[in-house]
Amino acid sequence: MLLEEVLQSLREYCASMPPVAAMRVDVAGYDGERLSLRAPLAANVNDKGTAFGGSLTSLMTLAGWGLVTLQLQLRGLSAEVYVADSAIRYLAPLRDDLLAQAWLGEGGQAGEGGWEAFFATLAARGRARVQVEARVMLPDGGVATTLSGRFVAIARK
Amino acid sequence: MLLEEVLQSLREYCASMPPVAAMRVDVAGYDGERLSLRAPLAANVNDKGTAFGGSLTSLMTLAGWGLVTLQLQLRGLSAEVYVADSAIRYLAPLRDDLLAQAWLGEGGQAGEGGWEAFFATLAARGRARVQVEARVMLPDGGVATTLSGRFVAIARK
Repeated sequence: MLLEEVLQSLREYCASMPPVAAMRVDVAGYDGERLSLRAPLAANVNDKGTAFGGSLTSLMTLAGWGLVTLQLQLRGLSAEVYVADSAIRYLAPLRDDLLAQAWLGEGGQAGEGGWEAFFATLAARGRARVQVEARVMLPDGGVATTLSGRFVAIARK
Repeated sequence: MLLEEVLQSLREYCASMPPVAAMRVDVAGYDGERLSLRAPLAANVNDKGTAFGGSLTSLMTLAGWGLVTLQLQLRGLSAEVYVADSAIRYLAPLRDDLLAQAWLGEGGQAGEGGWEAFFATLAARGRARVQVEARVMLPDGGVATTLSGRFVAIARK
């Protein structure tokens, strides 16, 4: 698939899931390395007028899931992608719209070889794991939250 | 405040936040140790027909936040409660309504002394940290997801 088709399919995916549609998540773009998702503060605000922790985590997790899915689709591969675990840090409150970025991490099977190692493992074993990093930025360039997580892809028969 | 008043205030809190209202979160109960929150699968379903990872994490985080808030309110204390960090494991897919429980963990400042140590620190320093464990169960008694997180309370002046 072409990148624009992949981004459009991610948009449709986000719109099709009730909890993600409620967050009004949109795909902001992909720069060849980082997938960006955004969501308006109004749909994701907590009692303190800042971004709800659950929304921040959901957006980062979705960005990681979307990054792995995008890489699969760009190669014409079909696999289910699951999040296996994640570690999240809440560093500073966000009083603006949410913008999450996700990119390939350095740990896991895909660590040293990058995406190629991940896809080689997937082809050989029918499943593979990849470490993904994600974050939500503050308007001033600081960091609101970070996520470090592992995602598993299982090839469809 | 009485327990019933506290649970009602938690219900109103959940209903007041747009992303939490969209998840249709309700307070299921408190048994003196564990706070339980629930949410219907229909409002929290992903593309695979199972519970969306972001909703599972949001519900566990909310249960932890609610547990600390409940303990404060039962003692008539006023403090802001924030999640500081969390580690999440996704163990098995859930094809049923979501039920999250949260309870006091063993790490952190409140570890050995339980809630009393947490409140003593809050009184002495104006802020305190507490470790909370949470999980979402499967209908057969297994575990779908776990969360281990730290929450910070900051006394209101």
